[in-house]
Amino acid sequence: MIPRYSRPEMVKIWDPQTRFRIWFEIEAYACDALAEIGVIPKESAKAIWERAGNVTFDVDRIDEIERVTKHDVIAFLTHLAEFIGPDSRFVHQGMTSSDVLDTCLNVQLVRAADILIADVDALLAAIKKRAFEHKMTPTIGRSHGIHAEPVTFGLKMAQAYAEFTRCRERLVHARKEVATCAISGAVGTFANIDPRVEEHVAAKLGLTPEPVSTQVVPRDRHAMYFATLGVVASSIERLATEIRHLQRTEVLEAEEFFSEGQKGSSAMPHKRNPVLTENLTGLARLVRGMVTPALENVALWHERDISHSSVERMIGPDATVTLDFALARLTGVIDKLIVYPENMRKNLDRLGGLIHSQRVLLALTQKGVSREEAYSYVQRNAMPVWRGEGDFLTLLKADKDVAAQLSATELEELFDLGYHLKHVDTIFRRVFGEA
Amino acid sequence: MIPRYSRPEMVKIWDPQTRFRIWFEIEAYACDALAEIGVIPKESAKAIWERAGNVTFDVDRIDEIERVTKHDVIAFLTHLAEFIGPDSRFVHQGMTSSDVLDTCLNVQLVRAADILIADVDALLAAIKKRAFEHKMTPTIGRSHGIHAEPVTFGLKMAQAYAEFTRCRERLVHARKEVATCAISGAVGTFANIDPRVEEHVAAKLGLTPEPVSTQVVPRDRHAMYFATLGVVASSIERLATEIRHLQRTEVLEAEEFFSEGQKGSSAMPHKRNPVLTENLTGLARLVRGMVTPALENVALWHERDISHSSVERMIGPDATVTLDFALARLTGVIDKLIVYPENMRKNLDRLGGLIHSQRVLLALTQKGVSREEAYSYVQRNAMPVWRGEGDFLTLLKADKDVAAQLSATELEELFDLGYHLKHVDTIFRRVFGEA
Amino acid sequence: MIPRYSRPEMVKIWDPQTRFRIWFEIEAYACDALAEIGVIPKESAKAIWERAGNVTFDVDRIDEIERVTKHDVIAFLTHLAEFIGPDSRFVHQGMTSSDVLDTCLNVQLVRAADILIADVDALLAAIKKRAFEHKMTPTIGRSHGIHAEPVTFGLKMAQAYAEFTRCRERLVHARKEVATCAISGAVGTFANIDPRVEEHVAAKLGLTPEPVSTQVVPRDRHAMYFATLGVVASSIERLATEIRHLQRTEVLEAEEFFSEGQKGSSAMPHKRNPVLTENLTGLARLVRGMVTPALENVALWHERDISHSSVERMIGPDATVTLDFALARLTGVIDKLIVYPENMRKNLDRLGGLIHSQRVLLALTQKGVSREEAYSYVQRNAMPVWRGEGDFLTLLKADKDVAAQLSATELEELFDLGYHLKHVDTIFRRVFGEA
Amino acid sequence: MIPRYSRPEMVKIWDPQTRFRIWFEIEAYACDALAEIGVIPKESAKAIWERAGNVTFDVDRIDEIERVTKHDVIAFLTHLAEFIGPDSRFVHQGMTSSDVLDTCLNVQLVRAADILIADVDALLAAIKKRAFEHKMTPTIGRSHGIHAEPVTFGLKMAQAYAEFTRCRERLVHARKEVATCAISGAVGTFANIDPRVEEHVAAKLGLTPEPVSTQVVPRDRHAMYFATLGVVASSIERLATEIRHLQRTEVLEAEEFFSEGQKGSSAMPHKRNPVLTENLTGLARLVRGMVTPALENVALWHERDISHSSVERMIGPDATVTLDFALARLTGVIDKLIVYPENMRKNLDRLGGLIHSQRVLLALTQKGVSREEAYSYVQRNAMPVWRGEGDFLTLLKADKDVAAQLSATELEELFDLGYHLKHVDTIFRRVFGEA
Repeated sequence: MIPRYSRPEMVKIWDPQTRFRIWFEIEAYACDALAEIGVIPKESAKAIWERAGNVTFDVDRIDEIERVTKHDVIAFLTHLAEFIGPDSRFVHQGMTSSDVLDTCLNVQLVRAADILIADVDALLAAIKKRAFEHKMTPTIGRSHGIHAEPVTFGLKMAQAYAEFTRCRERLVHARKEVATCAISGAVGTFANIDPRVEEHVAAKLGLTPEPVSTQVVPRDRHAMYFATLGVVASSIERLATEIRHLQRTEVLEAEEFFSEGQKGSSAMPHKRNPVLTENLTGLARLVRGMVTPALENVALWHERDISHSSVERMIGPDATVTLDFALARLTGVIDKLIVYPENMRKNLDRLGGLIHSQRVLLALTQKGVSREEAYSYVQRNAMPVWRGEGDFLTLLKADKDVAAQLSATELEELFDLGYHLKHVDTIFRRVFGEA
Repeated sequence: MIPRYSRPEMVKIWDPQTRFRIWFEIEAYACDALAEIGVIPKESAKAIWERAGNVTFDVDRIDEIERVTKHDVIAFLTHLAEFIGPDSRFVHQGMTSSDVLDTCLNVQLVRAADILIADVDALLAAIKKRAFEHKMTPTIGRSHGIHAEPVTFGLKMAQAYAEFTRCRERLVHARKEVATCAISGAVGTFANIDPRVEEHVAAKLGLTPEPVSTQVVPRDRHAMYFATLGVVASSIERLATEIRHLQRTEVLEAEEFFSEGQKGSSAMPHKRNPVLTENLTGLARLVRGMVTPALENVALWHERDISHSSVERMIGPDATVTLDFALARLTGVIDKLIVYPENMRKNLDRLGGLIHSQRVLLALTQKGVSREEAYSYVQRNAMPVWRGEGDFLTLLKADKDVAAQLSATELEELFDLGYHLKHVDTIFRRVFGEA
Repeated sequence: MIPRYSRPEMVKIWDPQTRFRIWFEIEAYACDALAEIGVIPKESAKAIWERAGNVTFDVDRIDEIERVTKHDVIAFLTHLAEFIGPDSRFVHQGMTSSDVLDTCLNVQLVRAADILIADVDALLAAIKKRAFEHKMTPTIGRSHGIHAEPVTFGLKMAQAYAEFTRCRERLVHARKEVATCAISGAVGTFANIDPRVEEHVAAKLGLTPEPVSTQVVPRDRHAMYFATLGVVASSIERLATEIRHLQRTEVLEAEEFFSEGQKGSSAMPHKRNPVLTENLTGLARLVRGMVTPALENVALWHERDISHSSVERMIGPDATVTLDFALARLTGVIDKLIVYPENMRKNLDRLGGLIHSQRVLLALTQKGVSREEAYSYVQRNAMPVWRGEGDFLTLLKADKDVAAQLSATELEELFDLGYHLKHVDTIFRRVFGEA
Repeated sequence: MIPRYSRPEMVKIWDPQTRFRIWFEIEAYACDALAEIGVIPKESAKAIWERAGNVTFDVDRIDEIERVTKHDVIAFLTHLAEFIGPDSRFVHQGMTSSDVLDTCLNVQLVRAADILIADVDALLAAIKKRAFEHKMTPTIGRSHGIHAEPVTFGLKMAQAYAEFTRCRERLVHARKEVATCAISGAVGTFANIDPRVEEHVAAKLGLTPEPVSTQVVPRDRHAMYFATLGVVASSIERLATEIRHLQRTEVLEAEEFFSEGQKGSSAMPHKRNPVLTENLTGLARLVRGMVTPALENVALWHERDISHSSVERMIGPDATVTLDFALARLTGVIDKLIVYPENMRKNLDRLGGLIHSQRVLLALTQKGVSREEAYSYVQRNAMPVWRGEGDFLTLLKADKDVAAQLSATELEELFDLGYHLKHVDTIFRRVFGEA
């Protein structure tokens, strides 16, 4: 997580003050429940909220205590006691540090997921706007980087929309994976704390109780969460890569917005580079790189070891902050993307009509020519066009075998662009529910 | 995928004959739909099923054709035409190779998921049996590999049960991610094929139509699928690691079944090694290693490139076959696991009662001692026990400060094992719905 | 490892017969040394070679024995005894299975490295040939996919040559990392076997003795080996990606060789797709995916556990076979690559001279214009050209501020291609040692 | 990179001030060379050093300029010009941003490697000290977590020493991989800058000229660098895992140093957890997770794209800072590790002599018993011992078949520990060059 690739709202989730506030709420809600079931005095539970419910924790002071105790939760509780006074002896009763740490982490990851879901919503809105704007803007579809058959720019956007709709659902699942609360004591047996405390804290924090914890929340949940972020990052890379391709000098069908004052290159002033989408490609690599550490975190030893902790201290903030930034950047790129329909048209015409070869092939087979023969008729006319030696339609008309099957008019109709776009509405209805 | 780590049912999904059969079904169902909407003659569609619906495809022959055409689907169609005759010209009409390849891959992955889900069900049954068998078998809970407080072996199994229940849900999701069908032609526009064909084929194969394909099914679906397998593999590693730990010479609380005739070591005949669970640890690494290639497959260029294909030819079979084998092996390990309750008891008593320190701490604070003081009373008595210099209960009774708060009887009650197990039923009800 | 992406020589290294032959040699050489130092009779050592030195091992028979013993080395030794008779009791004396397994694996990896190094040599030769052939073929250099300044196609090849020269050195290092032999007994103490046996076997097999083994050869060696293969795979991906870009319809500066009979697409007969380099991109992902499992193999428990074994059974063959195939495929691609210098020239001229902007900028600053001002003169003339509204040279000549500094002749000289190529020889000498 | 896992010296390499200082040196040395070959005035080159050679750059000011120009090097040059005045027009002449950025990155990575190498040296010293201290401290060697045969604690240390000696060599190689300098202009052709400038800057910065750059230094170098860090991290994990195992309650052969005031658990005051080595396990996962992004950075498009940049901004600092911290932490752990020879001895005796089974087996075969028979004699006596039903030596003496071959005295001699340690010196001489 570095400032350059960070946005404040997501960063705030991970700052010490937020963390200590969540810790406080966990402890205070736990005290409420303990008071309710008669384990501690009700006045003490109330006093905790009153004396520390609105304080700003002194992060440096807590750090200072931790340097001695080498234990972060004890350091926090010691500091908290400075506010609360004698009632502080009722705080954390029957609990273990992980009850606080893991529940807090889950609260943070849930909040992070909420931001990421909102990010995807904003991205989806941007994509949808461009999709409808260019629903019928014809452009060449490319497989293997080679011209295939016509599509529309709107269809490209529709595919991205469908993909990020799936990403949204995945994030909703990922959020649910980690939305659990564990207040179950030393090894998760509730020996020293009543399960009703967990239920109360969970309800208050918008979580569900972890069915069985073993001091820690099981890390398969977090593995799934980070794996999901890795998939979303990869979808970002796909759309970013598309734009990088479209902005190539030879293609130039779309271009990232280039602001006033921006300099493309210290050496070549004419250059307008797709630096945002290249950057997104790199950010995707980073988020993906955090998936495996999260997977390796699952196999903790026995009831728990603490090897997951350092991993999560890094990838918790890094993965969510980076992905949030990337989604927002991509939204900006799509929103302000400069689209060049005329260049799309120019590129479409570039191959002298070859992109219609499949239709010709099909028409020939429908006339009764065998697939193999039809293929060979088409290929022998396609090859010269490919070498720049003529126009496909003209050559086909002059081919005796082809002409024997298809009249000039029939051939011309096969070169109609509208033919390829007749189901755009169908696809739009599938993707957007409207067309 | 190597025979040593393979099971025949899963291997069969990936053999050429199965693949060609699925290709055939896709083509034949597509012909049915084309006939229904009047694009090709109904008799031809019927003839295709009649002439090739029960044949065994000649894999070598197809390979031979492919060596010339360098195109697998064309090779198959050429071979298929040898069975069907002239009607073969109606086959594959308006379709592109990926319509066949991607829909087939998804059928294979769906079938693989079905096996994996069944595998998890078998594993869950084995875990559940052992969980109830040892619901109240006390054993020490360990954090950081260090004795903490008592749990039961049944609780360990309950945690595994809950984890694999989540894995099952994830597999159901993963299955849904890839259960789509694309029959949309060259660049996914349905220019040459009616969307109703896709709908028909999808319905027949138990899939849903891909909302928008671009020649290919988008690979974020497969990325999510393989990422999910990686998470399941990591959960396997967790349970395998637990057993490896329990089988250590010094711990020996459980042991993999050791069959007659099996030799543990060529050099040390007494050795009984946890080789199955060590093997599972390695297999987990393998499946996890396939997640990143699947993630890298997402960002195909434009409407598609074929870089994903070689990756999927390897990880499609490898990840599913390996995971299937691993789940089955783990099921066998759990089912036949030799559990040593008496050794668990011996280990529980090993620390001279130190595992009850948390209860003593709590009892002291409940008597009004500050948390810090209580901590120091307990620690000063714990340290000698840790060094093997006495028994915790005896020392506590002799500690003036402690004795001032807690009577001998009170102290003895704090050393009761039942105290720790009182909520086992609660947890079992959460996990299994019964206790 | 699947036949489609395999070459026989590398596959052979990993077949059971080869493995059993290496196992035999390790055992037989060990017997020679044991006889030499008087531990076993010399005639027995001799008899082992005589009776089993030329046999073909019965792989099925060994598998059958293993199914009972569940131990592969014991199964082999049992089978070996069937050839050797009573003298077989001297075989494997004081050794442990891993002495055989790990030394054998290292022999296989060393042989694999030798093939890979030879592969790189062949690739280097192909690259060098094309580099000199096109040393002075001008083409546009692109940063961010955007035209920058001229380079030559030979320079692109020179970069690839330098990169694979480094890959070669890395492979030589990787080979050295695993070229060790361990014959040190149960836990590596030589308690039951004299270190001279290890020295003898090492010398015979072209290895060096492992300084300290712990039953197993330490896996950091293998991790480094597979990590190196991952780097080589990534370099393959780089060159493959370059060719994929050059073959794009809009660029078409080079093209993979398209053999007679080959069909590009079942639907679009005109298509010539860069399928080999796309395939190489996928293969690179596969090899890279094996790096992390190899890294995870390092932290074996205590003196050893066997979790590494299943990983190596898969990635040993898979990584080396796949990389061998990929290197050979890339060599073929480069060797037969169709280069289109005329298209390169066309693309060079595409931007109306904008690629010379940096020279103009420099010339202006050399005349004393500040960098900022020069930048703005250049940019204001570049932008219209970029939009297709004129030719850069013409506009510059007409710009008052520019004209005040640079005469028409001076400007024209700035547009000379030769200027950019004057150091090609320098770079070639650095890379190839000749120009 | 987070403060908790960072050390100041390594952090400093990556702070903006250091970076700008290196940028300055690159520019100033380049000016020296340009002056030397007569491209710019010598006084100007001198003035640059005089006016900016000792300044502290205003990081906020540079950030402010970058927010407008969206280009970091231009922002720096603008700020630099504020110090230098009119002579600043000679700065950066013929260079491109990457000349500065990539050369700087390599300087940083080289410096980081120097620290890492020094870290490994410190670690090696700590390991060596403990190795010689415990050269002859017997302890049980374990394979699969099961007791095998005796080793010494010194041998465990010797293995670690050998492994980190290899890591050191790898780091030296990694350093060499990135110790290059590129000052070659827009696309690496030296069109606008003489190669002698690169040679001069390289020499001054302790680098070698990059043989062929393409605006950027090729990223296979950095991939190899980070892959190497991943291997070192994995070796750290291995040693950390060993200590975690040794500290288990049931094993307790060694223990991390536990400082005064440190609290092991908020709930269980007696606990002394191997938290440092568990932490190291997590840190290893983090560093390993950065290998794949670095590998993915290799395949930049054409002469360059900027996708690598965001990756390097994160993993450059993160991987080096984390690994530096981990190496230093591991050094502390080893240096202060509390070793319990008496517990090692207790564990050695735990199996009733079974660890000598291999010797007995060997002795029997040397007496002429077939390997299979000897194996069965040993196993039938080993199994009861394993079940706690007797002492191995006693049982063997009572076994008729064994007694027929080996006298009581002979059997007793087979149980001598010294037998296993006779080659410790040999191994020490191999590893340390002394014993």
